[in-house]
Amino acid sequence: MGHYHFTCTKCHNNYNPNAQMLKCEDCHETLSVQYKYSTDEMNSLTYGKGVLMPIPLVSISDLISLGEGNTPILALPRISNEIGIEIYAKLEFMNPTGSFKDRGTSMMISALKSMGVSEIVEDSSGNAGASVSAYSSKASIKAHIFAPSSAPETKLNQIKVYGSVLHSIDGSRDITTEAAETFALEKKVIYASHNLSPFFIEGTKSFGYEIFNDFEKRIPENIIVPVGNGSLFLGIWKAITELYNKSHINDKPKLHCIQAMNVNPIASSDRWDKSKIAPTMAGGIAVGSPPRKSEVKNVLKESNGFANSVTEESIKEWQIKLAKNEGLFCEPTSAAAFAGLENLVHEKRINKTERVLIPITGSGLKDVFPE
Amino acid sequence: MGHYHFTCTKCHNNYNPNAQMLKCEDCHETLSVQYKYSTDEMNSLTYGKGVLMPIPLVSISDLISLGEGNTPILALPRISNEIGIEIYAKLEFMNPTGSFKDRGTSMMISALKSMGVSEIVEDSSGNAGASVSAYSSKASIKAHIFAPSSAPETKLNQIKVYGSVLHSIDGSRDITTEAAETFALEKKVIYASHNLSPFFIEGTKSFGYEIFNDFEKRIPENIIVPVGNGSLFLGIWKAITELYNKSHINDKPKLHCIQAMNVNPIASSDRWDKSKIAPTMAGGIAVGSPPRKSEVKNVLKESNGFANSVTEESIKEWQIKLAKNEGLFCEPTSAAAFAGLENLVHEKRINKTERVLIPITGSGLKDVFPE
Repeated sequence: MGHYHFTCTKCHNNYNPNAQMLKCEDCHETLSVQYKYSTDEMNSLTYGKGVLMPIPLVSISDLISLGEGNTPILALPRISNEIGIEIYAKLEFMNPTGSFKDRGTSMMISALKSMGVSEIVEDSSGNAGASVSAYSSKASIKAHIFAPSSAPETKLNQIKVYGSVLHSIDGSRDITTEAAETFALEKKVIYASHNLSPFFIEGTKSFGYEIFNDFEKRIPENIIVPVGNGSLFLGIWKAITELYNKSHINDKPKLHCIQAMNVNPIASSDRWDKSKIAPTMAGGIAVGSPPRKSEVKNVLKESNGFANSVTEESIKEWQIKLAKNEGLFCEPTSAAAFAGLENLVHEKRINKTERVLIPITGSGLKDVFPE
Repeated sequence: MGHYHFTCTKCHNNYNPNAQMLKCEDCHETLSVQYKYSTDEMNSLTYGKGVLMPIPLVSISDLISLGEGNTPILALPRISNEIGIEIYAKLEFMNPTGSFKDRGTSMMISALKSMGVSEIVEDSSGNAGASVSAYSSKASIKAHIFAPSSAPETKLNQIKVYGSVLHSIDGSRDITTEAAETFALEKKVIYASHNLSPFFIEGTKSFGYEIFNDFEKRIPENIIVPVGNGSLFLGIWKAITELYNKSHINDKPKLHCIQAMNVNPIASSDRWDKSKIAPTMAGGIAVGSPPRKSEVKNVLKESNGFANSVTEESIKEWQIKLAKNEGLFCEPTSAAAFAGLENLVHEKRINKTERVLIPITGSGLKDVFPE
C-alpha cells in the first residue's frame, strides 16, 4: 500500500492499511490515515491552483462519485441581524442522498472497492445508512445496513430503495452497533463503520478544502458543527491542518462543537454518564459513546473552540426559524448548531466582529416534519 | 422597464412588462421575455469567458438565491450498457428544495420582488409549490399555494414548512388552478403562476447554459425531458437558441418530450381528449391542459425531437432500476424520461452513436416510496 498508512490516534503506531482494520492492535484506539509523502495529482483532489487534497486512493480514477460536494454557501442576512454577527451556511443537504455523509461515504466505498471488497456491514441512525446504501449500489457492493427501528421512516425507506439489506433493530443506537458488529464477525463480512473507518474522514475533509475556495482563502473565524461521532468536525480540522501545514492559510479557525443537552458526551461539563441519555429530535447527533470522543476534545483544545449543549425547544425553534426566515429546511440536527451559536454569542464565547460558518448537515425532508 | 419586453408567443405583440400580465391582451396566448438589446454583466449571469445569459433583472444584485443550479453531471455506465447508448444525467434533485423548479422560481420571485410585489398566489402539484414557498420566505413575500389534496404528503408538508399558506383543494390539477385564479382575482393578489409567468423560463434556461459548460461546448446530441407544462423543456431550448444566435454553438441538440401515457396532451398521436386522463404516479407531468402546449410542439419540430408516451409499469421499473443500479433515487416523473429513452432507442428514433442527456428533475424523497 503505497502512499499512506493507518496511524493510531493515541499511540501513533503505524499499520499497513487493510479493509478490516478499524482500531489499533495495541491500544485499541481509533485510526487515521497518514500520508507518507507529498501526493501528486493522481492521488489528490484539486482545489484551485496548486491546492491538492491527498486521498487514500492509488488513482483518482478509483473515486466512486454520485456528484457529492461543491455545495453552495449562503449568507443568512436576517438571522445575522437577529444575532448580531455575520453568518454563512454551507448547504450540505444538497448532497446526492441529502447529507454531508456522502463526502465520507464516497471516499470510504471507493477505498474499499479498490481493495476488492464486495460485501459490507454498516450501522447508522439513518443518514449514513442511506448514503452507504446509495454508494454501494453505484459500486456494485452488497451492503447490510443496521438501523434502529425508531429512526424516521423516510430514512429507513431511503436505505432500502437503493437495494441494501436493511436490518431494523429494536433498541438504542448502541445496541444497533453491537448487532452490526456481531453480524460482521459471524458472517465474516467487512464492517465498514463510518464512525471508525479512517477513510471516511478523508472524504469529509473536502468540506474544509471547499470553504478555502468558497471564501477565497479567508475561511470564517468560527465554524460551528453539530457533533455526534464527529466525522465532519474531524474532517474539517484535518483539512485545516493540511492547508496550514502547506502554508495555504496563515490562521486556523475555531471549531465549536454543538450537542443536544439530552445526549452530550462531549459537551457535558460533568463526568459523562450514559444512563443520562434522553430522547432527542436531533437523531444525527444522538450518539452516547462516540469512539472518536478524545479526538474531538483534542481539536476543541487545539482550535480554541467551545462545546455547547442545546435544549430540544431551541432545536425546534431554530428549525422552524430557518425555514420561515431564510427558506432553508434542515433536519433538527442542523438546527442544533444555530441554537448553539445563539448560546455561544450570548455567553460572549464568540466575538461579534468575527464571521461564523455553519454546515446545514442534512435535509429536513428525511425527518419528521415540525408541527 | 429597460432592457426587455413581454412578447406574445403567437401574434408577437410586445408589451411593457408588469407583474400581473400573464397572457397577450389580443390573442390570449402565453408570453415570453424578449431582450431589446445585448445585456451586459450587470443584467446577466456569466457562464465561462464571454458567455452571458441575459436575465430580466435590472441588476444581478436583485437575484434572490438559495443556491440553485450548478448541479452535477453523472455518467450512467450500467444503464448506458443496457440500452447501448452513452447516457448522462444532470442531477436537478440536488437543488435547494429538491427539484429543477428552483431555477425558475429564483428568477420569477426576484423579478416580482424587484417590481415591488409583496403577496402572491401560485398553484402546483407539489414541487413548484414547495419551491415558491421557500423563495418567498427568503424574499419576505407572502405566498398562497394552491395544491391538490391528493399530492404526496411530503410535498404538501414542505409547502407549509417555509411559512406559506397552503390551500389544499379536493379535485384535479385543473380545478386547483381554477381555485387559485379565482382567489387571485377576488383578493386582488398577484397570480404568480410558474406555468404562465414569462420570468420562470428565464430561470430554467440556466440549465442550458450549464450543460454548455459541463460538456465543454459539446452539448449531447439528444436531451430527453419529462414534460408537463414544459417549463424546463422550453427553458433549455431558449438557452440553446441564445447560445446558437451568439455563435457559441454550431449545432443544436434534439429535444425529446416524454409524457405518461395516462396524461399525454402533447405526446398523444390522436386528437387529445381531456376525458381520457387516468391517474399517473408521475405527478410532476400530470398536466391535462398545458398552456404552453403549442410552444412545446414548435420546439419539437424545430429541434427534430420526438414526443413519446410511457406506461406506469415502465416508470416504476425505471425508478427502481436507477436507485438499485446507479444509486440515484428520483421521483417517478424523472424515471419516465428513461422509460421514454428506452422506447425511442427501440423505435430507432435515436441513433446509438449519439449521446443522451436526461435531467433528474426531482427527488424521490418527496414522493411516495416505490414498493
